[in-house]
Amino acid sequence: MAKPGEAMPTASSPSSLSPPEIPMELHVNNREKLIKCLREHLSSSSRPLRGFVFLQGGEEQTRHCTDHIELFRQESYFAYLFGVREPGFYGAIDIATGESILFAPRLSADYAVWLGEIKPLTYFKERYMVSMVFYTDEIVKVLHDLYLGLGKPLLFLLHGLNTDSDKFSKPAEFERIEKFERDLDTLHPILTECRVFKSDLELSLIQFANDISSEAHVEVMRKTRGGMKEYQLESMFLHHTYMYGGCRHCSYTCICATGENSSVLHYGHAAAPNDRILQDGDLALLDMGAEYHFYGSDITCSFPVNGKFTSDQCLVYNAVLDAHNAVISSMKPGVSWVDMHKLAEKIILEALKKGGVLVGDVDDMMAQRLGAVFMPHGLGHFLGIDTHDPGGYLKGAKRPREPGLKSLRTSRELQEGMVITVEPGCYFIEALLVPAMESSSTSMFLIVEEIDRFKGFGGVRIESDVHVTSNGCVNMTKCPREVMEIEAVMAGAPWPLKNFNCSENGGEG
Amino acid sequence: MAKPGEAMPTASSPSSLSPPEIPMELHVNNREKLIKCLREHLSSSSRPLRGFVFLQGGEEQTRHCTDHIELFRQESYFAYLFGVREPGFYGAIDIATGESILFAPRLSADYAVWLGEIKPLTYFKERYMVSMVFYTDEIVKVLHDLYLGLGKPLLFLLHGLNTDSDKFSKPAEFERIEKFERDLDTLHPILTECRVFKSDLELSLIQFANDISSEAHVEVMRKTRGGMKEYQLESMFLHHTYMYGGCRHCSYTCICATGENSSVLHYGHAAAPNDRILQDGDLALLDMGAEYHFYGSDITCSFPVNGKFTSDQCLVYNAVLDAHNAVISSMKPGVSWVDMHKLAEKIILEALKKGGVLVGDVDDMMAQRLGAVFMPHGLGHFLGIDTHDPGGYLKGAKRPREPGLKSLRTSRELQEGMVITVEPGCYFIEALLVPAMESSSTSMFLIVEEIDRFKGFGGVRIESDVHVTSNGCVNMTKCPREVMEIEAVMAGAPWPLKNFNCSENGGEG
Repeated sequence: MAKPGEAMPTASSPSSLSPPEIPMELHVNNREKLIKCLREHLSSSSRPLRGFVFLQGGEEQTRHCTDHIELFRQESYFAYLFGVREPGFYGAIDIATGESILFAPRLSADYAVWLGEIKPLTYFKERYMVSMVFYTDEIVKVLHDLYLGLGKPLLFLLHGLNTDSDKFSKPAEFERIEKFERDLDTLHPILTECRVFKSDLELSLIQFANDISSEAHVEVMRKTRGGMKEYQLESMFLHHTYMYGGCRHCSYTCICATGENSSVLHYGHAAAPNDRILQDGDLALLDMGAEYHFYGSDITCSFPVNGKFTSDQCLVYNAVLDAHNAVISSMKPGVSWVDMHKLAEKIILEALKKGGVLVGDVDDMMAQRLGAVFMPHGLGHFLGIDTHDPGGYLKGAKRPREPGLKSLRTSRELQEGMVITVEPGCYFIEALLVPAMESSSTSMFLIVEEIDRFKGFGGVRIESDVHVTSNGCVNMTKCPREVMEIEAVMAGAPWPLKNFNCSENGGEG
Repeated sequence: MAKPGEAMPTASSPSSLSPPEIPMELHVNNREKLIKCLREHLSSSSRPLRGFVFLQGGEEQTRHCTDHIELFRQESYFAYLFGVREPGFYGAIDIATGESILFAPRLSADYAVWLGEIKPLTYFKERYMVSMVFYTDEIVKVLHDLYLGLGKPLLFLLHGLNTDSDKFSKPAEFERIEKFERDLDTLHPILTECRVFKSDLELSLIQFANDISSEAHVEVMRKTRGGMKEYQLESMFLHHTYMYGGCRHCSYTCICATGENSSVLHYGHAAAPNDRILQDGDLALLDMGAEYHFYGSDITCSFPVNGKFTSDQCLVYNAVLDAHNAVISSMKPGVSWVDMHKLAEKIILEALKKGGVLVGDVDDMMAQRLGAVFMPHGLGHFLGIDTHDPGGYLKGAKRPREPGLKSLRTSRELQEGMVITVEPGCYFIEALLVPAMESSSTSMFLIVEEIDRFKGFGGVRIESDVHVTSNGCVNMTKCPREVMEIEAVMAGAPWPLKNFNCSENGGEG
């Protein structure tokens, strides 16, 4: 029976979910948290508690020289602080008073005819729960009027490195910005660090994105058949998460890789556009996650297209699943993410050895970084408003240099409130296996004829989104993971399975 | 019975269509056509037939400072000439020989691990049917070697105004471009004019985009119910065109406007994101079109959410439908598009007069531009690789200045081979009606209590994509249009209707 307030799937809806109300106070909390941290920082360096955090929201982009407008999605730092879905805004927070100010674009009368009702400023004040709203052409006057200090008002602008893209965020620009003092160094690290630790309201959105995406993954698994095109799996996922979850955006372009494509880590982009025909006997690796009110999910399921694992598929799949489960069992505050990566590698290498694909001492393999041949990517990354949420490397922190480890998007210790993906994988990638078989430091571990057997196999990745709690962690992703669960669901069993492994499914309140 | 080679809808598929093979020779033809036109132009101005057409393809874009990559869609002029789906290319055509050359990015070894197989240059040569393929770092050398003239080789670069966006196309840029002479004026108008006239292969793609989109519109119509959210209609459309038509992109962001929103011409963007709940009694105005291998469709259907037109809805709907049909009946080479716009206006005004909403002489209304109050947008625009395909105003051509007419995206005479949308509409827009009721030149036509009755009504648009032939035109869009057709289809009748108006449905070969 459904709990009170919980919808049941009906014949007409394949979903038990519906989009939750957007808790706009989430952004009020985010602003308060930033101001608290910023004040502490300023106090500790004996600087006055004056000035404004000042951010520029994103603008709509057209495609090249045309008037084709790409669907706008807010810049992530701006979304974090203000939750504004419309383009063309600026936002400020007064460090002295904590008051928040939005600046909305002044729209021409034509806008009402072409693009919709011109909303009064009070609409934005109420919707976004800010202290004041003005027009963008009033920035200079408003901030000068509000500023309590002497001289030019001080703006804390956003400028800093994104350690995943190696790009710098663009500080706000507007006309007559020279009427202000500008601080380009203080804000970025503090705001980024705020984003690393998720509040309960943020977690509730990430949980919803996970719920609807998990359900969509199950739906896709059930409907997958040989003869389909990969993009049809993408289409089913997108439809399920938008139709029933109201998710207009995905966290990233869907990776729908089958057969050999499943060893291409970021398959699915325009030059490799999910266009292969599924074959009986293929593994499918589907890495897809929806986004809800800016907060995302990032989930990978791997399963056999025909619904039945072969023994080779079982071998590799269970190697990865064991790594996935072992990591989640070990995660809690204080644990090093680099150690988790190595734990996953070790479990995968052990399984491959047990399966007769590798030979030799696993510690020796680890010392030679053999794990990176089978899992060249990092174990996981922070997840939030960005799929690769920022803050993975604090200023001055050095990236590991070793194969595999150098791909880690963070090397930090886990702390309560982090949300991080756990996504071990095991792939048979020609471009990595051939050099490894030729190298004198790794060739002795690899049994050539066994490796050859896996040519064209592709790979397996299992990815869940995990929230670090005070004494452990919670897996927010709810997909079938055990071989037996996947086979049952693909054969038509309901999910979650009934009467299966009660200890695992019945334990949570 | 299905014709040979034609799939029938089955219980498992709501579609009778499947994605056609991509005819890559389409782009060979486009290149030949351009070179022919360009040579004629050079000859007529006694210039040597030497140099290269040289274009830069689009690059992948990340979202702000993050590593989130937006799904890439090729720049439209580059797509026209080369059909290349991958980012980072350049393309050239040798004016002397007609030979075509692609320059592909040289990918690092890492690419194979993360993004997929590094394809050999021969792959691109075969796929895109060009004469030669080199790497982008070889541009200077290759073009110098191929050039037959003296001095620096001459590049014809793309630079010119898009009359819809008022933006200029960006001429190609690459390192050491100063080793070339550059002509920025010649190419753009000639290439743009080539795009105005569609070849049979181009028409076949636009037809497929129309077929799958028409089918998807019917599917959405059938499944629309009060209580749904507008975005669920968008989701169903996107899913149908991707799942069964392989259309990963739409021509533009879906406009799913219901109730009063249907009078917002470009509803559906991020600030008005198709999020209203459908009410019994609403009209829905759905403007949605899929794109297939760059070529698009642009289709609007208007229908009552509950499947039954009220008399007021009939009045407005039939006014627009009569305009739509009258325009299509009149279209042929030599006809002025401005006249077609006026024809549509006049029919709508006549219907509103007949329906008791307006009073007075329709010619007087026309003279006062009253039509623009009810249809503020232009009657239609060229359609092709861009939704608003370029070429609407030839260099030096002046835009009309009168209300309504000034919104026309072209004022040209129709010519064989043009594809243009026919999209009359009739909207009750407060921001236009209030001034019209206050103006001494229009107030006498408007019966205030009748206009008031339509407050909140929204509007109706009917949009088809029409190909101008040698002696008339062909409507490429195949949606239910008559009130009776829409009501029948929404009640579950198959589409096309059987035993209905045989003369209209049986006439084509």
